[in-house]
Amino acid sequence: MNKHMTAQTLSRLPIYYNYLTSLSDEKKNGNISATAIAEALGLNDVQVRKDLASVSRGGRPKVGYAASELLGDISRFLGFENHDGVIVAGMGNLGRAMLEFNGFADYGFDIICGFDRSKELVGREINGKPVRDIADMAGFCKENGIKIGIITVPETSAQAVCNAMAEAGIEYILNFAAVHLTAPKGVTVHNENISLTLAMLARCSSNSMSSEQ
Amino acid sequence: MNKHMTAQTLSRLPIYYNYLTSLSDEKKNGNISATAIAEALGLNDVQVRKDLASVSRGGRPKVGYAASELLGDISRFLGFENHDGVIVAGMGNLGRAMLEFNGFADYGFDIICGFDRSKELVGREINGKPVRDIADMAGFCKENGIKIGIITVPETSAQAVCNAMAEAGIEYILNFAAVHLTAPKGVTVHNENISLTLAMLARCSSNSMSSEQ
Repeated sequence: MNKHMTAQTLSRLPIYYNYLTSLSDEKKNGNISATAIAEALGLNDVQVRKDLASVSRGGRPKVGYAASELLGDISRFLGFENHDGVIVAGMGNLGRAMLEFNGFADYGFDIICGFDRSKELVGREINGKPVRDIADMAGFCKENGIKIGIITVPETSAQAVCNAMAEAGIEYILNFAAVHLTAPKGVTVHNENISLTLAMLARCSSNSMSSEQ
Repeated sequence: MNKHMTAQTLSRLPIYYNYLTSLSDEKKNGNISATAIAEALGLNDVQVRKDLASVSRGGRPKVGYAASELLGDISRFLGFENHDGVIVAGMGNLGRAMLEFNGFADYGFDIICGFDRSKELVGREINGKPVRDIADMAGFCKENGIKIGIITVPETSAQAVCNAMAEAGIEYILNFAAVHLTAPKGVTVHNENISLTLAMLARCSSNSMSSEQ
């Protein structure tokens, strides 16, 4: 297994994962070749073979991979069997949706709690998860070794919250505020831009983008 | 200008756009070279030069691009000056967040209304946008020529809503339900998977992914 794979390979792993999970139970219990996966997804089969070999040792010539084993290997590689604590800053509709969404657990993430500065929200529970005072965020994260934060605050306070997360020891930030955040030292920020995703989908995909990602 | 660019070029255009918008006003009023952009973003400069040439004719040897002009060219290419109507199906927290989010307008999208089946929600307004009965979705979309839909319903009903959108003439669907939807004929679906984005960020970015996308 190679942890130093390219960003391109990494970006395709979820595509393979999604494809394999979408197979019927019968197919999941059988073998599948890199060529078959490449064909189904419209990808180059040499590339697919290389990608799969970098996360799984289960490939056999002329047979391919046991589909369920390959799924397990990708899942382990992507850390879906972890229990990584995650906090969410900003309890507007989007932040509440994050706390209510139970799908994170399948990917090895535990959404621990939300933070907000509103006195009306602090102390409440959303989907069984407490909403805490954002002033206590740093202490809470340090005590609990939280390394992952999601930002759903308004754009005007997003960079300040990002900086506060960095000081609290958070290393990975997923930012939904519609502003490009600058990552403090030692922190990796992914700026999620839903408008741009929509623009790429609706205005570019009829040309040469694949229909599924 | 070349509308038949590769998916890779397309995926980089938002990165250039984000970078250019993040420049100071002074720099925005000046010139910027492909090489400088490549350096700032850690990309290959030959690639950046090709990418930019495919959307803008403003590049001059030894001078580069007028930054504001390049920004305008990318913006027009990505359709940010359009007024494309968008509907949102599912008025849970995530769907309401979509209606409340005003950032879509900057990218040329008008969020027209939401749809839900709950009698308590239908007839209400969220951020000045009406919530309509999902049973009326097809008629509404056909009458108003809506081509873009966002799905924020629970996973159990997501494929049915996707199919209904296709019948209503919707051509592009952004799906937030945690289930991989199969695109009906003539429809392009982008399955947004926030858990996977988080997994890529928190478990793969320390290897070889770039820190910003």
